[in-house]
Amino acid sequence: MKSDLDSIMEANGLDGLMITGPAQHNPMMVYLTGTVHVTQADLIKKKGADPVLFHISMERGEAEKTGLRLIDYSQFSMRNILKESNGDNVKASGILYQKMLESVGIKSGRIALYGQVEIGKKFATFTSLQNSNPDIEIVGYRENDTMLAAMVSKDGQEISRIRKMGDITTKIVGKVADYLSSHSAHNNVLINPNGEPITIGNVKRLIDIWLLEEGAENPEGTIFSSGKDSGIPHSSGNPTEVLHLGQTIVFDIFPCEVGGGYYYDFTRTWCLGYAPDDVLAIYENVNNVYQQVVSNLKSNHLYGESQSLACDLFERQGHPTIRNSPNTKDGYVHTIGHGVGLHVHEWPVCGNSHVKGDSLLPGSVFTIEPGLYYPNRNLGVRIEDTYFVSPAGHIEVFAEYSMDLIIPIKK
Amino acid sequence: MKSDLDSIMEANGLDGLMITGPAQHNPMMVYLTGTVHVTQADLIKKKGADPVLFHISMERGEAEKTGLRLIDYSQFSMRNILKESNGDNVKASGILYQKMLESVGIKSGRIALYGQVEIGKKFATFTSLQNSNPDIEIVGYRENDTMLAAMVSKDGQEISRIRKMGDITTKIVGKVADYLSSHSAHNNVLINPNGEPITIGNVKRLIDIWLLEEGAENPEGTIFSSGKDSGIPHSSGNPTEVLHLGQTIVFDIFPCEVGGGYYYDFTRTWCLGYAPDDVLAIYENVNNVYQQVVSNLKSNHLYGESQSLACDLFERQGHPTIRNSPNTKDGYVHTIGHGVGLHVHEWPVCGNSHVKGDSLLPGSVFTIEPGLYYPNRNLGVRIEDTYFVSPAGHIEVFAEYSMDLIIPIKK
Repeated sequence: MKSDLDSIMEANGLDGLMITGPAQHNPMMVYLTGTVHVTQADLIKKKGADPVLFHISMERGEAEKTGLRLIDYSQFSMRNILKESNGDNVKASGILYQKMLESVGIKSGRIALYGQVEIGKKFATFTSLQNSNPDIEIVGYRENDTMLAAMVSKDGQEISRIRKMGDITTKIVGKVADYLSSHSAHNNVLINPNGEPITIGNVKRLIDIWLLEEGAENPEGTIFSSGKDSGIPHSSGNPTEVLHLGQTIVFDIFPCEVGGGYYYDFTRTWCLGYAPDDVLAIYENVNNVYQQVVSNLKSNHLYGESQSLACDLFERQGHPTIRNSPNTKDGYVHTIGHGVGLHVHEWPVCGNSHVKGDSLLPGSVFTIEPGLYYPNRNLGVRIEDTYFVSPAGHIEVFAEYSMDLIIPIKK
Repeated sequence: MKSDLDSIMEANGLDGLMITGPAQHNPMMVYLTGTVHVTQADLIKKKGADPVLFHISMERGEAEKTGLRLIDYSQFSMRNILKESNGDNVKASGILYQKMLESVGIKSGRIALYGQVEIGKKFATFTSLQNSNPDIEIVGYRENDTMLAAMVSKDGQEISRIRKMGDITTKIVGKVADYLSSHSAHNNVLINPNGEPITIGNVKRLIDIWLLEEGAENPEGTIFSSGKDSGIPHSSGNPTEVLHLGQTIVFDIFPCEVGGGYYYDFTRTWCLGYAPDDVLAIYENVNNVYQQVVSNLKSNHLYGESQSLACDLFERQGHPTIRNSPNTKDGYVHTIGHGVGLHVHEWPVCGNSHVKGDSLLPGSVFTIEPGLYYPNRNLGVRIEDTYFVSPAGHIEVFAEYSMDLIIPIKK
C-alpha cells in the first residue's frame, strides 16, 4: 500500500523515487497523482517526505487536482541552466533534474527511476545526470521493484475500484453473448438480419462502445480470436474474419477505468451453436484444471505453486506443457496468471524460482488463466478470472460469470 | 518519409535504430510495424538493411501481420545468458540486447534508442549494455532526432489517414454543437429534458462514444473547459461542472485512429446562447490573428515565423505575450502550434531559435492555434486547425469547420 512506500524504500536502500511522464496511462505516476490531465510532469518523493509534483504553468489547474505539493518548472531558469551547460541540451536537461532533486532536499543517494515515456531522450538525460553527479545513483529495477512491492497490496478503495471494473467487464461479456445469440447462421457463418456475415471487427467495435458507456476504456484492445488464431494465446483476432459455428472463440477482455486507471482481466472460450467432440474434451480438461487450481489457492502461498499444479494436471491429462517441453507451441504454453492493478500485468509474479513479489499476500489481485492451445488443429481454450486475497486471507473472485462453452444461436 | 530513414541515419552518423515496447500506442514502433497486438517487442534496423522484429512465441501470429523479418526471442537461450552474467538479471538483459544486435549484424557503432516504455528497468538494461560494450554508443535524442526527421514528411497514405481523422473529428464536433443546441437552459444553465443540468462529464462521454463509432479513440482525453478553466490552456475541464450560458468553452479535441495510429488536433471556442461584449472582443482578436497567420503560411518557411507574427499581432492588440513577458499567465501564453502525426506533438517544431525540424517542408502536418487567456476574468479563447503542406507546396487545411462563437440553444 502507499503507506508502505517509505518502509520499502528504507529496506531497499533508496533515498528517493523519481517518476516522469504524464498523469494518464502512466501507472507509477497515477498511483501517486490519480488520473488528471497532466501531459508532462515529474514527481519526486524523498524518503520520509511527501511527494512533490513538478508541472508546466499551463497545467497548474490540473496539477492542483492531485492535492500534492506543486513546483512550477518555470521556477528554474532554463536560460541560466543552458549557460551552465554551454548550450548542450542534454547536459542542460540533466542539470535541471539535479536542481529539481535539490529543491526537494536530495543532493546524493540512490534514486529509483520510473515512468511510461519515450525512452530515447530520457535515457540521454538520466545518463548525463548520473555521469555528472557521482554521488547520485539512478536505480532502474528489473526485480525487487520498490513501487510494485507497495502496489501489490491493494487497499479497500483500490479493491472496490477493481471490483467495479469486474462488474463492468462481466456485464459487457454478457451483452456480447446476448448479441451473438440474437443472430442466426447461414452456411455455418453468423449473419446479421440483412444476411451479411458478422465480423470480429463488428464485435470489437460494440465491445469498445459498451465499455465506454460504462465508464471504462480499452487501451490494449480485446482478444477475440477464432479457429487457428485462438490457438495462439496473444493473437487478437482478425477484424475482417467472420464467425463460424463450432469453432473455438477465445474472448479475453482487459479494460481499465477511463483515463488510465485500474484494470480487470477476464477470459471465456465460446463455441457458437455447437461444439465438436474434440473441443468439448479439451474444454473439459481446461475447466477441470481451472477448478482444481482455484480450490487450492491459499493466502501467503507462492503463486508459482498454482503453476506447478496446473502443469502436473495438464501433463497427467497427456498435454505438453512449457515445464516438460519449454519451447512447445502446443498444449499449456504460458504461466497460470499475473497480478493486476494500474498495470494489466504487475505483481504478484508467477515465477518458477523464488523471486520477490511471488506470494499471494493479503490485498493481492491476480488472475488464474489455464489454457490449452493446438494451432494446427485450429483450436484454443482459455478460462480466466481475476481473484483477490482479502485482508482476512480469503481468496475471492471479483465477478462471477457462467462457464458455458456453447453460445446458442437463433434458429 | 520511411524511405528517407537510411539517408538521415547516414547524415546523423548512426549505424542502427533500436525501438522497444509494444506495437500499439508506441509511435516510433508503429511507424515501422503498423498497429498490431504485439505487447512486448524490439525492432532493430541496421543502416541500409530492412528492420527486424523480435517477438515472443505467443505473439507470432500478430508479429507476422507486420510483414517484417521476424526473430523469436526463444532463439536466444536465457539459461546460457544468465550463466554468462552470473545470475545478474540486469547484466543478462544487456547481454540479450548485445546478442540481438549481433544477430542483425551490428557489433559496434552508434545506435539510436526509441520506444514508449516504463523507463526504469530499460534504463538499467541499456546502461548495462552501454557499459559492457565500449564499441557501442547508445544515442538518445533531445534534438536533431533521426526518426522525427523521417516522420515529418508524410506520404500520400499518411496524409489520407490524417484527412480521414480530420473528417471524423469535425463530424463529432458538429454532433456536439447539435447536441448542445438541442437543449434549453434554466437559470442560465444548460439542462436536459428532465430538468437536470448537463455536465462536462456527460458531454465528454458522448464524444468518446461517437469517436469510437467512427473508428477513432481518444487516449489523451478531450479538453472541454469552461469559465476560469478555459483560461488555463491545458485545463481539461471538470467533469462534474455544469454549462453556464455566456461563458467561454474551449473545446480542444485530439483523437487518433483506434489502436494508436494517426492523430488530428482541432479547437473551437464556444459560448452557449450568447457572448458578453468582452468575450466577443477577445474572440475577434484571436480570430483575426488566426486568419492573418494562416494567410501568411508558406511552404519551406520557418514555423517560428508564424509565432513571431502572432506575437506581433497580439502585442499590437495590447495583449501580453510570452515573447514580451516570458512568465505571463495572461494573454498569449503558448506557441502557435506543433506538428501532428503518430504523436499528437511531433515535428515540425515551432522554435524561437533555429533548430532542426523547424521548417514547413512539403508533407508536413501541423497546427495553427492562437489563443488568449485571462483566467482571472474567467475566460479563454483558442482556435485551432490542422494544416499540411502538399507535395506541390500548397498550404491546405484538412477539414473545414465553422468559426461561429455562439452556439444557439433551444428557447
